[in-house]
Amino acid sequence: MTLRIGIIGCGYKGSDHIDRVANRINGATLAGVADIKQELAEKYAQKYNCKHFETGEELIESPDIDAIMVVTRPHDTHVPFVLKALEKGKYVFSEKPLSTSADDCKRVVEAETKIGKRLVQVGFMRRYDNGYRQIKKAIDEGTYGKPLLLHMTHRNETTVSDYYDNDAIVETAIHECDIMHWLVGSDYDKVSCFIPGAQTKYTHEGLHDPQVMTFDTKNGIHADLEVFVNNHNSYDINCEVVCEEGTIALTSPIFTQVKTQERAQTSIPQNDSFRFRQAFDSEIQDWVNGVLADHLNPTAPTTWDGLMACVAADALEKSRDNGFVKEPVVLPERPDLYKN
Amino acid sequence: MTLRIGIIGCGYKGSDHIDRVANRINGATLAGVADIKQELAEKYAQKYNCKHFETGEELIESPDIDAIMVVTRPHDTHVPFVLKALEKGKYVFSEKPLSTSADDCKRVVEAETKIGKRLVQVGFMRRYDNGYRQIKKAIDEGTYGKPLLLHMTHRNETTVSDYYDNDAIVETAIHECDIMHWLVGSDYDKVSCFIPGAQTKYTHEGLHDPQVMTFDTKNGIHADLEVFVNNHNSYDINCEVVCEEGTIALTSPIFTQVKTQERAQTSIPQNDSFRFRQAFDSEIQDWVNGVLADHLNPTAPTTWDGLMACVAADALEKSRDNGFVKEPVVLPERPDLYKN
Amino acid sequence: MTLRIGIIGCGYKGSDHIDRVANRINGATLAGVADIKQELAEKYAQKYNCKHFETGEELIESPDIDAIMVVTRPHDTHVPFVLKALEKGKYVFSEKPLSTSADDCKRVVEAETKIGKRLVQVGFMRRYDNGYRQIKKAIDEGTYGKPLLLHMTHRNETTVSDYYDNDAIVETAIHECDIMHWLVGSDYDKVSCFIPGAQTKYTHEGLHDPQVMTFDTKNGIHADLEVFVNNHNSYDINCEVVCEEGTIALTSPIFTQVKTQERAQTSIPQNDSFRFRQAFDSEIQDWVNGVLADHLNPTAPTTWDGLMACVAADALEKSRDNGFVKEPVVLPERPDLYKN
Amino acid sequence: MTLRIGIIGCGYKGSDHIDRVANRINGATLAGVADIKQELAEKYAQKYNCKHFETGEELIESPDIDAIMVVTRPHDTHVPFVLKALEKGKYVFSEKPLSTSADDCKRVVEAETKIGKRLVQVGFMRRYDNGYRQIKKAIDEGTYGKPLLLHMTHRNETTVSDYYDNDAIVETAIHECDIMHWLVGSDYDKVSCFIPGAQTKYTHEGLHDPQVMTFDTKNGIHADLEVFVNNHNSYDINCEVVCEEGTIALTSPIFTQVKTQERAQTSIPQNDSFRFRQAFDSEIQDWVNGVLADHLNPTAPTTWDGLMACVAADALEKSRDNGFVKEPVVLPERPDLYKN
Repeated sequence: MTLRIGIIGCGYKGSDHIDRVANRINGATLAGVADIKQELAEKYAQKYNCKHFETGEELIESPDIDAIMVVTRPHDTHVPFVLKALEKGKYVFSEKPLSTSADDCKRVVEAETKIGKRLVQVGFMRRYDNGYRQIKKAIDEGTYGKPLLLHMTHRNETTVSDYYDNDAIVETAIHECDIMHWLVGSDYDKVSCFIPGAQTKYTHEGLHDPQVMTFDTKNGIHADLEVFVNNHNSYDINCEVVCEEGTIALTSPIFTQVKTQERAQTSIPQNDSFRFRQAFDSEIQDWVNGVLADHLNPTAPTTWDGLMACVAADALEKSRDNGFVKEPVVLPERPDLYKN
Repeated sequence: MTLRIGIIGCGYKGSDHIDRVANRINGATLAGVADIKQELAEKYAQKYNCKHFETGEELIESPDIDAIMVVTRPHDTHVPFVLKALEKGKYVFSEKPLSTSADDCKRVVEAETKIGKRLVQVGFMRRYDNGYRQIKKAIDEGTYGKPLLLHMTHRNETTVSDYYDNDAIVETAIHECDIMHWLVGSDYDKVSCFIPGAQTKYTHEGLHDPQVMTFDTKNGIHADLEVFVNNHNSYDINCEVVCEEGTIALTSPIFTQVKTQERAQTSIPQNDSFRFRQAFDSEIQDWVNGVLADHLNPTAPTTWDGLMACVAADALEKSRDNGFVKEPVVLPERPDLYKN
Repeated sequence: MTLRIGIIGCGYKGSDHIDRVANRINGATLAGVADIKQELAEKYAQKYNCKHFETGEELIESPDIDAIMVVTRPHDTHVPFVLKALEKGKYVFSEKPLSTSADDCKRVVEAETKIGKRLVQVGFMRRYDNGYRQIKKAIDEGTYGKPLLLHMTHRNETTVSDYYDNDAIVETAIHECDIMHWLVGSDYDKVSCFIPGAQTKYTHEGLHDPQVMTFDTKNGIHADLEVFVNNHNSYDINCEVVCEEGTIALTSPIFTQVKTQERAQTSIPQNDSFRFRQAFDSEIQDWVNGVLADHLNPTAPTTWDGLMACVAADALEKSRDNGFVKEPVVLPERPDLYKN
Repeated sequence: MTLRIGIIGCGYKGSDHIDRVANRINGATLAGVADIKQELAEKYAQKYNCKHFETGEELIESPDIDAIMVVTRPHDTHVPFVLKALEKGKYVFSEKPLSTSADDCKRVVEAETKIGKRLVQVGFMRRYDNGYRQIKKAIDEGTYGKPLLLHMTHRNETTVSDYYDNDAIVETAIHECDIMHWLVGSDYDKVSCFIPGAQTKYTHEGLHDPQVMTFDTKNGIHADLEVFVNNHNSYDINCEVVCEEGTIALTSPIFTQVKTQERAQTSIPQNDSFRFRQAFDSEIQDWVNGVLADHLNPTAPTTWDGLMACVAADALEKSRDNGFVKEPVVLPERPDLYKN
């Protein structure tokens, strides 16, 4: 059987997933697309010879669509589509963040809990990155002793003009909100967000850049995170875990080294599509395999993970707005459905 | 349409391709397997729920098989299957080397030329490696001026006990026999093979290890190649191209860096399946796309490329046996079918 | 003229300086040594054929000693010798920290200010390290735009058993207390010290390890510092400065790269004597040159620098003891003598 | 006692040594200089407040000069000064190559042998480089098994206009002529020099660039060497030794890593004075220590080493002129004076 996938949202990330499903995923086919911009959806429908739906709702309801990927912008449009898919009993992949508000995430938790089966996977693709996987394996196996500290950076070359302070958290740091607790296997105790006085001249009204965040887990592990989204340099994602007997750190994908003009140099990625291409591919393949088996991979990011990241994000925003002090991260009771 | 692929040969490399076609390739399905060891083919047929053919010939002839991959050992068993596939007018992928003798390759050239259409792709997967591609792009675009020299190493951790001197050429150096002329876009003038007096204690009767080879192209570019197949170290493939204004060199895929015990360290691959996983995936996907379009990618390795590598390999053997002097590499006339 | 140097303190660092002055410094000779352990001083006096003084005071007063290096332990023994040297009008080099208390440093400021001439150089050798110098040059010249953030680590393999929490600051972080403000050219506004819940099992009673510190300068630049002194790994000093258009980071001195056992590896230093050998040599040579010219290099670390670092250290201790909140760093008025 | 050094030759390398002796060497002082260009010698004599001699001979004969450094150009001017120093019974350091002809070197061997004591040290400074020393130590201790192959490059950014084919050997490859046999502890059996058809456009009349050389030692170790002296890139010296269980390779000195414009980059040296500064300093310090002890370090490069390199160089030239075939390297009997 070949899984017929429908994709809602044909923008920057949507078109990346369209290309992925159409050309690189095994066991699935691109069956339909939708976008609020009709001509965009039309374009991809023609290019890949698939159906064009006028609305996401129609795509979800169509008997020609087995499973749905929600890649819409802004991010608070994800949840209505996800809920609709759950209503139809269809598997749905939502790009990260599941929502920009924890309350919205809770509505999905409720709907899915009522069904009693995991139908939702959230797009925290970093969990599929070979580098993060090696780090998690080393932590889980205690290769270098127990983890103590994490140093992370999330650097983008540039942002769009309507990207503001909250985006630095819910759009950008949301990845670390997920990956940090996943790596060390402990929920957050407190987080903080600090805006240093020195700011880049390349930022714009409404955006403080860079920002510095911290995460402390319930088992005492401390992480710092630099968020710098107009670094005029490169898409530079770093994560170093300091353990009792050694450190392990991410490296960027490179294929060649050049020596020229008295320099030895390697490239740093320009964007996430390139940096995390392997992770995105593995993520979607894992989701497709799960749907085909009618059983999502138990280690795939869940609705609950989507919620946890949003709760941490809310606390980060609160810290940033209230004098940079550490804010507690308070989660509701975890339903049985999300206990592995 | 989904391409139904049959794979002949279920050994080390065959099983890698079986896994690839079944799980990672888009637009294709694993439809059948065959192996001279029936129980091996049976095992994979059950595991992947596909047909088991008693012979490669039956697989090729089956109406349930659209295209064939030949991954048999020893390598001189490739050509009969390839010719059979041509006879049936089916697309066929042959693992490298196409054969261990140039004469056998010529028979495929003749058969395919008679058909007048490229149906064969040869498994020189390195052409699909991101690193080699970046190097070729830099050469083609003259980014660092014209190429002058190449330094290459082909290092394996260990070999099987029935791997002998000729294997160092037709099994191992065959990759460089293909990649070197492809990178610089010029046929070979002369090659040489030298056996240094100092040999590793880890080699066995019948195998000189290491060996040093050279390649000179008609446009004057010189390459040296270290072949060291029991290096007790790692699968370490290097290629540095020295150009007029800079050098560009392959790097190995790494995902993390570790600091421990007063050392900063990154891993080096253990084998080709890991080192060239991206290349193998891209290669087979490109072949599948070509077959589905009924038109192989013009830049994919052809029967002619298989022949060229074997002619260079023959000259390397002659040099090794005749006092290490440079041997001319003499190609027949290139048929129009193989002119891009 | 050859400068006759006397060294007080023949322990770990003292013996390193003895070897340096006797064997690697131009224009100076080792003329005398003293140590509270007479047999130790005796040993070096014999080895290098120089005078042995029973006390530091005698060494300072001797007409055979032109200039003095104070390398005693514990660190609060530096100031009395420094004051004594000032009393005699002799140039004196004090190892870092100048003292463990800001008040003691102020006494030296007063004494030197009264003389009206800089006679004291403090051993912040990192300012002479080629790496830190390249970073400072890039900042001063704005090569990558203005600096915004610093990420630093100060990691030691292990500590002695009588090394406690305060040592993590006055003995270890004192280096960053000096280097951070020197790099960016701005005094401190606030600092903090945080003890994470997760602590290494290799620490001992009375020492929290690791600790995390922050520095904010008056011009808004923010730095974080990991102090981890029993990392069971290596002496691993890192400093990355994030600027508006790029980052620049220290690298460790390495001389070779090894590939073995499926790993590419380079060494990380074991201790400061190796890591900063070039810096120590340059530092002492610069001091000797200054003394010979009767005019210390205006950019050499002064008594005032010694005081500034101690004031920052005091604030770090206060933060650590008072709930980890940011503490203001309050300096006295800077005397004209210390304005360059 | 302070050694009074006289330096003959105040050009590029001479002025580097003048600066070294005057400012960085322990136990020595710059006592006099001479140069065929009087105004040049005059300039340095004034700058460093030392004597100016009108001729090298006068400098050598002066009772104010204890030991002599010969840094003249062209290189065939070294031997007469060296012989003169021997005549006066004074220690003499000669920059590499000792001469451009093996016959000239033999005259020094004879003169020194007659004296029966080593008074000459030859400037093969690479033996003092930390990197080469680590490599030699690993070879001597068999850390990665016995050595089998060496891959070397000697790359310069550019050459002067009167640098010709022979200079590529006697001026440039002479370093590898010395270091290769020193590293592996075996004399040469045969060497070769090959001029590839592809040549850089940046070379000039009379110079083939690049050139490829090989060295085979009597114990069967094979080395290849790329000599590329107008690489329009950097001063890039590489040496990788392939052993039975691993490889060890030189790295360039770097102090920082920069990330900017989607690149991670480190610098490569521009010239030998920077690349080998540590080696030059250690070399001259070792020589000074030896002279002060009236016993040169037994492991310091000798007249015999100067001869060996020239004999290999002669064979390289012969190979280059006679069709690139391997030429035997024939040494005279080694006098007892040069057996360690």
